[in-house]
Amino acid sequence: MAARIAVMEPAERNITLKEIGERGWLSILENKLGKKISGNLLVPIGDDAAVFHFPQEKKLVITTDAMVEGTHFYRHWLGWRGLASRAVLAAASDITAMGGIPLGFTISLGVPGDVLARDLERFADGLLEIAEQYGLDILGGDTVGSPHLFVDVGVIGCAAESRILRQQGACAGDALWVTGTLGRSHAALIKAQLLDEGKADLDDPCWRPPDRWGGLEAIRCALPLRAMTDLSDGLARDLGKILRNKPIDARIELDHIPVDPFTREVASKLGRDPAELAYIGGEDYELLLVEAGDSFQQTELKTEGMALHRIGKIHPGAGKVHLLREGESVRITDPLFEHFRT
Amino acid sequence: MAARIAVMEPAERNITLKEIGERGWLSILENKLGKKISGNLLVPIGDDAAVFHFPQEKKLVITTDAMVEGTHFYRHWLGWRGLASRAVLAAASDITAMGGIPLGFTISLGVPGDVLARDLERFADGLLEIAEQYGLDILGGDTVGSPHLFVDVGVIGCAAESRILRQQGACAGDALWVTGTLGRSHAALIKAQLLDEGKADLDDPCWRPPDRWGGLEAIRCALPLRAMTDLSDGLARDLGKILRNKPIDARIELDHIPVDPFTREVASKLGRDPAELAYIGGEDYELLLVEAGDSFQQTELKTEGMALHRIGKIHPGAGKVHLLREGESVRITDPLFEHFRT
Repeated sequence: MAARIAVMEPAERNITLKEIGERGWLSILENKLGKKISGNLLVPIGDDAAVFHFPQEKKLVITTDAMVEGTHFYRHWLGWRGLASRAVLAAASDITAMGGIPLGFTISLGVPGDVLARDLERFADGLLEIAEQYGLDILGGDTVGSPHLFVDVGVIGCAAESRILRQQGACAGDALWVTGTLGRSHAALIKAQLLDEGKADLDDPCWRPPDRWGGLEAIRCALPLRAMTDLSDGLARDLGKILRNKPIDARIELDHIPVDPFTREVASKLGRDPAELAYIGGEDYELLLVEAGDSFQQTELKTEGMALHRIGKIHPGAGKVHLLREGESVRITDPLFEHFRT
Repeated sequence: MAARIAVMEPAERNITLKEIGERGWLSILENKLGKKISGNLLVPIGDDAAVFHFPQEKKLVITTDAMVEGTHFYRHWLGWRGLASRAVLAAASDITAMGGIPLGFTISLGVPGDVLARDLERFADGLLEIAEQYGLDILGGDTVGSPHLFVDVGVIGCAAESRILRQQGACAGDALWVTGTLGRSHAALIKAQLLDEGKADLDDPCWRPPDRWGGLEAIRCALPLRAMTDLSDGLARDLGKILRNKPIDARIELDHIPVDPFTREVASKLGRDPAELAYIGGEDYELLLVEAGDSFQQTELKTEGMALHRIGKIHPGAGKVHLLREGESVRITDPLFEHFRT
């Protein structure tokens, strides 16, 4: 095994983080990540803090999102590059959900001492790949010893004040739409946990959240928006953010939920309704859109590079979700769904 | 014990995070922390992301700093309020070290399920106390289940471009100064770990990093500054940031290092030189200042609310530190110091 690694990688990289030491790791990080992706980064990582030229006339949008091994992921599910891209894109999704465009990110990594330096290099490669692909500056980081692996990503973005979209504001009569298709991440989780088909593929795109901020302007042109959030906890739970403390209900047409083909495949193996999996499943990082009104006859809209599906409507009520299948009221008795309701 | 707690706290708070659930905890957090400290916070926590009015004409300074229980602290050393204040002020120190003023912070908390909700409330109280005391907006957070307790704080601040001070830039002939006194945090660590005098006091001010950004303008008036960093890893290591890859050495006069009285007390119990402890010890979060030149006869300057001490000078060299005691060259053979040198 050692010989094979020696061929694949320089031998000196087959050492642990503990052996390479904090300084060794920081110099690898600085070499890899101390780049100015945009002209706005005045001081990159390597100093006490990063200095960034924030665009004037815009508002700063900021969020943070933590993932812990065992709670949110296992490294053998995602791979190190996959972990990096998932952590950054999941956090960036919250910026998009406010109507903003991500500009850059910080990353804190808690890492056991026995992790191999070359695995951490792959993680750093994953960060750089995402940064370059999306034009995001790397604005700092911290690597600390921890008995358990965790990743915490902070993202800053910008939005004109008039473009900010809150979670709340939906009115009775408004239609509900979603971007893309739902269920993929949940199906991948079920596959890895329950179906015993071996480990999930490393760098499988089903683990990579979509980058919806690029399509935001096209969505605004297609639909007059009243409110928005991202589907991080799953449609079943995220609808609650829109309804919370408001005299409104949501009616969701299960038949109209756009289900990912991979989710259909997993649902079929489990003998489950694919739409229910897509409704319950979390971590899709698609957008849940509240149209100001209900002005379209069709249930699908094509925007640049992305389809929008009309999945339901807001009615007067008391913060509840009503599920319909072919116009008939249904209840989902899935234990997971019940858990979410409590 | 339960009865006593019931008297001290509402009985319903004597439950674990696991029992209260993520939603329960989030509503406590939003009630406590969803405040606008400054008029610049347009959307506080509780939505997908926070929205902040960043001051025009200023540059954005950003950093992140993670602390893990067992690696950086134990909760019984700091207490929950102390943990909150230490985490935020330690991260804010990096903003000061760039010449910036902190404006707000995000906080990610990884927390075992058996932590009591009322302890987390104390943590939230600690965050709010620091936010209100220093006028810092709370810009978001994430609470996730984790087998080990960790805290990751992101801080944003601002600085005029002309006011930014890098770590590097020191020239031969420049004098080196420090703010405040050194050693206190290291002495507290030794006391808690080695001297077996019981647990460190909860909320002991020795664990609370100083807030040096308030004195930054006074320092600039007193000293022409060429470079700056904060003393997070200890003077012994942090000097390396100033010297790294430059043809300069530092000569440090151990007698001139301002040693905290508590550190003198601990050093005396250990039979150690207090100045050596102060030189080696980390986490003081004081500032290490490089004067542009060497224009003062005295070794102490009083600025508004703070003393500055001249501890040494930059000479031509190769990135090394030379220690002097009463003008004679000395070496510190402390095992901890040797570890830092590798």
